[in-house]
Amino acid sequence: MTTLQDCRARDAADPLRPLRDLFVLPDGVTYLDGNSLGPLPRAAAARIAKAVEHEWGQGLIRSWNDAGWFAMPQRVGDRIGSWIGARAGEVVATDTTSANLYKVLSAALSIAAQDRPGHRVVLSERSNFPTDLYIAQALCAERDCELRLVEAEELPAALGDRVAVLLLTHVNYRTGAMHDMAALTRAAHEGGALAIWDLAHSAGAVPVDLHAAQADFAIGCGYKYLNGGPGCPAFLWVHPKHADRFSQPLAGWWGHAVPFEFTPEYRPAPGVARYLCGTQPVLSMVGLDCGLDALDASLPHGGMQALRAKSLALTDLFIGLVEQRCGDAGLRLVTPREHADRGSQVCLAREEGAYAIMQALIARGVIGDFRAPDILRFGFTPLYVGFEDTWNAVEHLRQVFESDEWRQARFQQRHAVT
Amino acid sequence: MTTLQDCRARDAADPLRPLRDLFVLPDGVTYLDGNSLGPLPRAAAARIAKAVEHEWGQGLIRSWNDAGWFAMPQRVGDRIGSWIGARAGEVVATDTTSANLYKVLSAALSIAAQDRPGHRVVLSERSNFPTDLYIAQALCAERDCELRLVEAEELPAALGDRVAVLLLTHVNYRTGAMHDMAALTRAAHEGGALAIWDLAHSAGAVPVDLHAAQADFAIGCGYKYLNGGPGCPAFLWVHPKHADRFSQPLAGWWGHAVPFEFTPEYRPAPGVARYLCGTQPVLSMVGLDCGLDALDASLPHGGMQALRAKSLALTDLFIGLVEQRCGDAGLRLVTPREHADRGSQVCLAREEGAYAIMQALIARGVIGDFRAPDILRFGFTPLYVGFEDTWNAVEHLRQVFESDEWRQARFQQRHAVT
Repeated sequence: MTTLQDCRARDAADPLRPLRDLFVLPDGVTYLDGNSLGPLPRAAAARIAKAVEHEWGQGLIRSWNDAGWFAMPQRVGDRIGSWIGARAGEVVATDTTSANLYKVLSAALSIAAQDRPGHRVVLSERSNFPTDLYIAQALCAERDCELRLVEAEELPAALGDRVAVLLLTHVNYRTGAMHDMAALTRAAHEGGALAIWDLAHSAGAVPVDLHAAQADFAIGCGYKYLNGGPGCPAFLWVHPKHADRFSQPLAGWWGHAVPFEFTPEYRPAPGVARYLCGTQPVLSMVGLDCGLDALDASLPHGGMQALRAKSLALTDLFIGLVEQRCGDAGLRLVTPREHADRGSQVCLAREEGAYAIMQALIARGVIGDFRAPDILRFGFTPLYVGFEDTWNAVEHLRQVFESDEWRQARFQQRHAVT
Repeated sequence: MTTLQDCRARDAADPLRPLRDLFVLPDGVTYLDGNSLGPLPRAAAARIAKAVEHEWGQGLIRSWNDAGWFAMPQRVGDRIGSWIGARAGEVVATDTTSANLYKVLSAALSIAAQDRPGHRVVLSERSNFPTDLYIAQALCAERDCELRLVEAEELPAALGDRVAVLLLTHVNYRTGAMHDMAALTRAAHEGGALAIWDLAHSAGAVPVDLHAAQADFAIGCGYKYLNGGPGCPAFLWVHPKHADRFSQPLAGWWGHAVPFEFTPEYRPAPGVARYLCGTQPVLSMVGLDCGLDALDASLPHGGMQALRAKSLALTDLFIGLVEQRCGDAGLRLVTPREHADRGSQVCLAREEGAYAIMQALIARGVIGDFRAPDILRFGFTPLYVGFEDTWNAVEHLRQVFESDEWRQARFQQRHAVT
């Protein structure tokens, strides 16, 4: 039986513990929703204020050069690249995950059409994050391709059949299950398909090595485990062997070889810069830069290896405590127990009341989120979540059931964003 | 002969003069580049700090509901709509101008393909802002259409010939020339074409009435005359008669009818909301909201009618003073003298040294910008530019020529962003 004292002892012994102080964590809140929106890095308020008051206010248009705004998509992209096994110059921070998927899937389909004209299927997982499926639907309709959706376990078998592109999210948003990126990419290539990986729930959360996995394209999100702030720019990686082969359809001026020559003919920039389109939101990009500072602060403490070890320890602890203390609450563990198959979150399903249960938890200061129709989702970001936090979360969950308070009408009322 | 005293008297009599105090204008700077990046509204620093520290820092994920982040694209879009003759619910603030053009041009081509299958030309102006041409090139290649570029005066004649879409920027970025939106839209419709208007240099700068002009689609920029801050979200308008006819290819989850149901099938939201795609940069969107506050502050002083009158007075004054005081400097007026044909900027061409002349002006605190190959561009935003500012700008220009300082090597060195 794990006790609160055990958890406190583990916090005291945790070498990553000091990193928690890099974040603003409101009093009375146990924040287990960093997989939806990471918290505010403490240094960000001053840095964003400087961008507003000094760079915008005093520098005005000159800050495109003087404050380095112009180079931010590449500079911030390189910083993200260091966490996902990309090399310098291969990643840009820009636009949204959805728009970036549109770009890379479009390029991948163009490459496939040239190299494997008979391959006209985009293969994905039925439970992939919906925006990935929506974008794929739209592009498949345009390109006269088929979007084929299967269950995770059916993927290897489905890869044989005229698949042009395998499109997967590395860590599933609803279950926390993690794919074997290298194995599935290998299987895709053997079947003649390219592999696109959505790293929304991976970047900064789990070890990713795009080059080692020989992936073809990747996209991901800045505001989850990269702690870049609400709606900050997403990112995009293209394997250098593909980068110059095709331009993408969102061919705006920022992807031009010489944007400030203002020539009427589009000529794509070399490399991943051609995946830029329009002017990026600087203030939100500065937030992302601050989030990466906080992540980089883990490097002297072991970096991703230490983060991953703690993440697994936290999710193991959470699973164990839920079983130990909420064993009769009707909760079903959705997230895989195998470490190799698990991201940095734990999802529990409950047939009745999942939404209201999460609302009751949030009212108690334990913030996770609900994912329709029946999922309670808890994200564990080892940069700032501790072992005692994990104990507290389960204790509140236990009390929500013990008190039956989740049945109160106020917890049933749906919000716009759930 | 206009004198400095005349200019001071006009400032003293200007009913819009108090609005200048709503902006941060650095000491020693005469800012004539608000058509590239509007200055910082004084209230924005505190408002953005609140979004960072309170909404992100304390509210965390709850702020999507509690701070109204979720509804911002529509709420801010409606505010923009009030300045361009759109009705409530017809505009969204989102993404970039380039991405938004991709969406509306795609929808327009789909409508044209259905209504006028023989019409397969996108007609635009050779000197349109390049990103508009690049996006049109990419989409025309995809849709097997032709992008036809003509000079402004050739537009009416070119409209007869199988044109599907007329794509124009209302006020030209290089010349400051303004099209007659109603007349060209009427001519487009008579020839069986739809009309898309890029309002990047119009929204907040000149009177625009999309419904009166019977336009079909419009897009525009938030960080120029709307003063929304570097790279803040752009906007998009679709005439309600078209809004539900087609979904656009950037079919991400934010354009879904029920995004938080997480259904695997895309079902577009009714109306313009289907033109949303991914999560928007909240901090940059808050900046845009502040820019609109400053613009709305002109309403008790006469709103657009007063702004337009002052804008024309300022650009008239600038043109007159340049002729009076720099008459032998080899400058050629590019911007039309006719009020009806002029936006809110004045452009001067000079065969030799335009880049260096602008750098010398900037070193003196007069900030305009250079547009390749030979244009000196001066934006006049009546919210914060005054008559004495205009005098000062021309006086510095005169001194730059008199001293020949623009020939110094330091002014020849090109920056990344020019």
